[in-house]
Amino acid sequence: MAYTPVRRDRKAPPVRINLLSDTQTRPTPAMREAMARAEVGDEQVGDDPSTNLLCDRVAELMGKEAAVFLPSGTMCNVTATLVYCRPGDEILAHVSAHLIAREGGAHAALGGFQITPLQGADGKFTAETFRAALHPRTRYQPPQTLVSAEQTANIGGGTIWKKADLDEVVKIAKANGMATHMDGARLLNATVATGISARDMTAGWDSAWIDFSKGLGAPIGAVLAGTRDFIDQVWRWKQRLGGSMRQSGMCAAACTYALDHHVDRLAEDHANARALARGLAQIQGVEVQEPETNLVFFKPDGAGISANDMIAALNKRGVQIAVMDGRIRACTHLDVTSAMIEETIAHVREIVRKA
Amino acid sequence: MAYTPVRRDRKAPPVRINLLSDTQTRPTPAMREAMARAEVGDEQVGDDPSTNLLCDRVAELMGKEAAVFLPSGTMCNVTATLVYCRPGDEILAHVSAHLIAREGGAHAALGGFQITPLQGADGKFTAETFRAALHPRTRYQPPQTLVSAEQTANIGGGTIWKKADLDEVVKIAKANGMATHMDGARLLNATVATGISARDMTAGWDSAWIDFSKGLGAPIGAVLAGTRDFIDQVWRWKQRLGGSMRQSGMCAAACTYALDHHVDRLAEDHANARALARGLAQIQGVEVQEPETNLVFFKPDGAGISANDMIAALNKRGVQIAVMDGRIRACTHLDVTSAMIEETIAHVREIVRKA
Amino acid sequence: MAYTPVRRDRKAPPVRINLLSDTQTRPTPAMREAMARAEVGDEQVGDDPSTNLLCDRVAELMGKEAAVFLPSGTMCNVTATLVYCRPGDEILAHVSAHLIAREGGAHAALGGFQITPLQGADGKFTAETFRAALHPRTRYQPPQTLVSAEQTANIGGGTIWKKADLDEVVKIAKANGMATHMDGARLLNATVATGISARDMTAGWDSAWIDFSKGLGAPIGAVLAGTRDFIDQVWRWKQRLGGSMRQSGMCAAACTYALDHHVDRLAEDHANARALARGLAQIQGVEVQEPETNLVFFKPDGAGISANDMIAALNKRGVQIAVMDGRIRACTHLDVTSAMIEETIAHVREIVRKA
Amino acid sequence: MAYTPVRRDRKAPPVRINLLSDTQTRPTPAMREAMARAEVGDEQVGDDPSTNLLCDRVAELMGKEAAVFLPSGTMCNVTATLVYCRPGDEILAHVSAHLIAREGGAHAALGGFQITPLQGADGKFTAETFRAALHPRTRYQPPQTLVSAEQTANIGGGTIWKKADLDEVVKIAKANGMATHMDGARLLNATVATGISARDMTAGWDSAWIDFSKGLGAPIGAVLAGTRDFIDQVWRWKQRLGGSMRQSGMCAAACTYALDHHVDRLAEDHANARALARGLAQIQGVEVQEPETNLVFFKPDGAGISANDMIAALNKRGVQIAVMDGRIRACTHLDVTSAMIEETIAHVREIVRKA
Repeated sequence: MAYTPVRRDRKAPPVRINLLSDTQTRPTPAMREAMARAEVGDEQVGDDPSTNLLCDRVAELMGKEAAVFLPSGTMCNVTATLVYCRPGDEILAHVSAHLIAREGGAHAALGGFQITPLQGADGKFTAETFRAALHPRTRYQPPQTLVSAEQTANIGGGTIWKKADLDEVVKIAKANGMATHMDGARLLNATVATGISARDMTAGWDSAWIDFSKGLGAPIGAVLAGTRDFIDQVWRWKQRLGGSMRQSGMCAAACTYALDHHVDRLAEDHANARALARGLAQIQGVEVQEPETNLVFFKPDGAGISANDMIAALNKRGVQIAVMDGRIRACTHLDVTSAMIEETIAHVREIVRKA
Repeated sequence: MAYTPVRRDRKAPPVRINLLSDTQTRPTPAMREAMARAEVGDEQVGDDPSTNLLCDRVAELMGKEAAVFLPSGTMCNVTATLVYCRPGDEILAHVSAHLIAREGGAHAALGGFQITPLQGADGKFTAETFRAALHPRTRYQPPQTLVSAEQTANIGGGTIWKKADLDEVVKIAKANGMATHMDGARLLNATVATGISARDMTAGWDSAWIDFSKGLGAPIGAVLAGTRDFIDQVWRWKQRLGGSMRQSGMCAAACTYALDHHVDRLAEDHANARALARGLAQIQGVEVQEPETNLVFFKPDGAGISANDMIAALNKRGVQIAVMDGRIRACTHLDVTSAMIEETIAHVREIVRKA
Repeated sequence: MAYTPVRRDRKAPPVRINLLSDTQTRPTPAMREAMARAEVGDEQVGDDPSTNLLCDRVAELMGKEAAVFLPSGTMCNVTATLVYCRPGDEILAHVSAHLIAREGGAHAALGGFQITPLQGADGKFTAETFRAALHPRTRYQPPQTLVSAEQTANIGGGTIWKKADLDEVVKIAKANGMATHMDGARLLNATVATGISARDMTAGWDSAWIDFSKGLGAPIGAVLAGTRDFIDQVWRWKQRLGGSMRQSGMCAAACTYALDHHVDRLAEDHANARALARGLAQIQGVEVQEPETNLVFFKPDGAGISANDMIAALNKRGVQIAVMDGRIRACTHLDVTSAMIEETIAHVREIVRKA
Repeated sequence: MAYTPVRRDRKAPPVRINLLSDTQTRPTPAMREAMARAEVGDEQVGDDPSTNLLCDRVAELMGKEAAVFLPSGTMCNVTATLVYCRPGDEILAHVSAHLIAREGGAHAALGGFQITPLQGADGKFTAETFRAALHPRTRYQPPQTLVSAEQTANIGGGTIWKKADLDEVVKIAKANGMATHMDGARLLNATVATGISARDMTAGWDSAWIDFSKGLGAPIGAVLAGTRDFIDQVWRWKQRLGGSMRQSGMCAAACTYALDHHVDRLAEDHANARALARGLAQIQGVEVQEPETNLVFFKPDGAGISANDMIAALNKRGVQIAVMDGRIRACTHLDVTSAMIEETIAHVREIVRKA
């Protein structure tokens, strides 16, 4: 049982290229300055102007009535299901969705919800799969109350749900009296990649949120948007969960800064991801999934080396990178330059050559 | 939302052959007499002699230290998971298991447990599937605390888990620090069909239960067995759930009667099921799953009639029968004779002929 | 941790007079015969005629739309709060109420409800106390959703809520958007003692239930009544909790028999209680609370003997009796005759004399 | 249902003196600079040096093995009870404790715990009251698992638990197998006021926490300390609740700054509180509770004005102040000077004079 924070091995070589996750981005000097200058008040009583401003900005961006600042994306998912569902209700989501695979059973633990994992390629389920999972309302089965989609689908490969597919899911959900929730941790990666606005992408979804501590580069925070009534109810759970803060404007200011300066540049991360994929694809013995946004999944294939050994070898060369279900995941972000991409490709090439 | 008890259509023809479920068996005159004569006391304070006797009998039968009488099999499953797991823990079971598919989300609702549905033919998962579903202990995933198997597998077709397969599941579970629970609603069907004793069949399983209101023909009740400490804890939840009763000996006496008179005769139900399957298999346009115990799953196949229409036609002829996931399920039991089996086959033959 | 059923000390003298609880009543021969003859079906699908009849009878008695049969009174309380409240809601009840003091924390455990215990004499709270406990709706306090009253108040001394007081509680609750639930475990004791009908006594209460395994003398069961929609929702929880049974008509028939034959005779229990109180009051060194129904609370006072020692002495003389919060509780019921009352008084007199 | 953040009335006069709460303190320029310079990493994987440093500092301060950074004090309470208790367990705390009165029913909602509110003067319960609330372990009552004390007792008047009383509570708890948790939101106010170290004050308590966004003046955060194993388990719940953050070092740096610069100065707040109390006490028609730390409770008494009207009058004069249970609460803190205290006294005097 190793729950204690895994502090990095102090004898490991220093990390020069961090492809581990976009959660590891560090606030830039300009962002730090924006934080230091933030006008603040008591968030819990609605009096923090910087937090209020951020919430208004995100609500506007998403085309929703209201929004609320939360310390993490996980709390966006948790508060949303707590509002939509009663104990014994059923949530449908892709088997690889964050709320099933990465939140420690929170939705069962805190809300008493049963989650039905849907199958499907690239982290997405089809309308047919969704329809097939619906059941009539009986006493023997949980009421199906909520469907959730993750845009982009992280474990699916940073893949993008097509707008038409999202619309179809909403249509089925509404025809069955279900609420719709979008886990938009990396929603802006999808909007930048497709040119479809966040407002259009989340249209029809009762709630949606974006995470500021991933590619957007802020240190802390996510914002959940929905109807005014929904957000009122989220506030009650935010309070219960301990997510109500005080002078949170210090953090919100970094998020607003990110909205102003770090959204368009996500295109660079995508370009870097494509460059990485292209470079890796040219290496004999490496299999690469074509990236749609900022995540590149690859694995050694016939190279005489395992994924774990390749990661270890990269670590030794100062490249930090993640393993996920037997594949290697590289994540491009604010702190990753195109030079680093070239260097990483060179390392992998050499590791394979020496294998 | 039709939660109200579905009272039978009063204009429907009288039911002459009830293949709907072995839960529909009615107490025989002799069983009724045993109930009427039962010596009783206050169960809740441990003072009902007939209930105590039944619990001792079942504990002995299963080779467990102790047992407790509960009003239903569902409560056996619910109290067991409530004892084994803490909120946010993960339970592994076959996707068709009663505790996932038929208990209304109770384990999430009441305990906060996340259930991972395992795939597999005939209502059973393989050791490989089980092993592949295990994950390391991290903060991001729920602790995997419990595995459950259903013997026989109801929705799987009344199929029997092989003893060796059960042993393998136990071995993997124990190697991973997990508890093991057997939903033995129809366990005695498996023991009668295989000749393996209940004690041997449940060996290695921390808890197991049998239902008396199915093929055994008692009106009410199930008995859950395990270690003395486990049963002590189950009692606490029985109390909370409202499963503690008073002069429950009235019902327990019927169960003890069933143990004495209705176990061996389950073989007749199995013979009837095989006869039904053989008869149906000879009808062109009917596809039948070979029965292992008292459940026969079949469906029209190329007969120009749907399963639902066939059921409606059977109902009209006084044969009550169930639909389950697009197939027809016939259940043989105490109130089903071999003559009824022949008649049912004839009805199906005629329905197909007229289709 | 002694959760195991406390089986009676086998060396203790046989119990000749059982004043422990009206839950200990045993079914009479006539009641047993009614059970043995009961027409039954599958309750879970709404097909048990004896159970349906009982539910119709109780709904009619209470003036409610519908009713449902449950294995215990505790399950009546638990399903009701599960329907009315969402996690984090607040229930108000007297500190001595069964749902706070005797249900093992079930309402918090299963539903996530916070209970605010109200103070008040004789197991009842006043309208003033209720009003003072109300708070405005803020994010910092749980929504106050439900108020519950126990008629008669068991630990309060079998005391009766006055109709006018019940009405006042309903009025305040409704003015504050709260649901109202009556734990009527011994409601019929109150109706017999006051001459007010169950329908009038429960008027304005959204739900109410009566227990058949107390003074009414049936072995198992309680019936919860309310609106049709409420009962539909209760059914879903009954299923989840494992309270759905099969041929429950066997037990329901005993309850219907009790409605026909054991209600009016509760007056005898009350007369016996008054006789016991009168007799005990004449003993120097015994303090008695004037009984309103079938519970007599008394304690030694200046007699040079403790309550526990007095109970032990009574046990030795074959009189079983309960201790509750330092007082002795005698409960009169179906199996207690007026001769037994006289004998009990004589025993107490002698015990005090010898102390 | 007004859950939406109450944004201040824009037509109200500007707040010049904010006695509402020490949660309203704003980060000083020096604290902002410490934040802007903070070295950060990914907290969730244990890699944020500023957060790690803060946790080490607080663990050391409290004499505990380990500590964890959380976004609020409420989350310290919630994660602690989630670790200590299982659903249906009982927590004992003073009726006015934050975890009962101000956390929205979180402990019932999220954990399924029943809280027994203890009575007692000044927000504290006595050893006798605690002992009297203990009950034997039966199936009918929840296991009593945890006792919590709030140091200082906020609603009690900022009162200080005496060290000897804390020790006595610990002794009783341990003798009964219960865990002990200290809500130390304002613990450092108690240590500064008494001269007893945090280590001594929390000795014997299994866990304790301090809030940095109250008198210590940091914008966000609280730190919970306990054994290493306890903190490991808290981390799991922190993850589930959505309290795991990323570059939280930005906020932790402010807390460390507060430890270095804002602890000793709490004495000024206490001096200001005493000065305020002294001044108010001299006004005819004002009743004041003698302050022990930084909270002053008072109310008009025979002044011909209600508490609410006095607050409204103060608001008009630019003094923000709180109402709590019919009393007025003034809170001194970092942003309150002795001149403001004098001015406030003058305002109250004038308001009373004009009443």
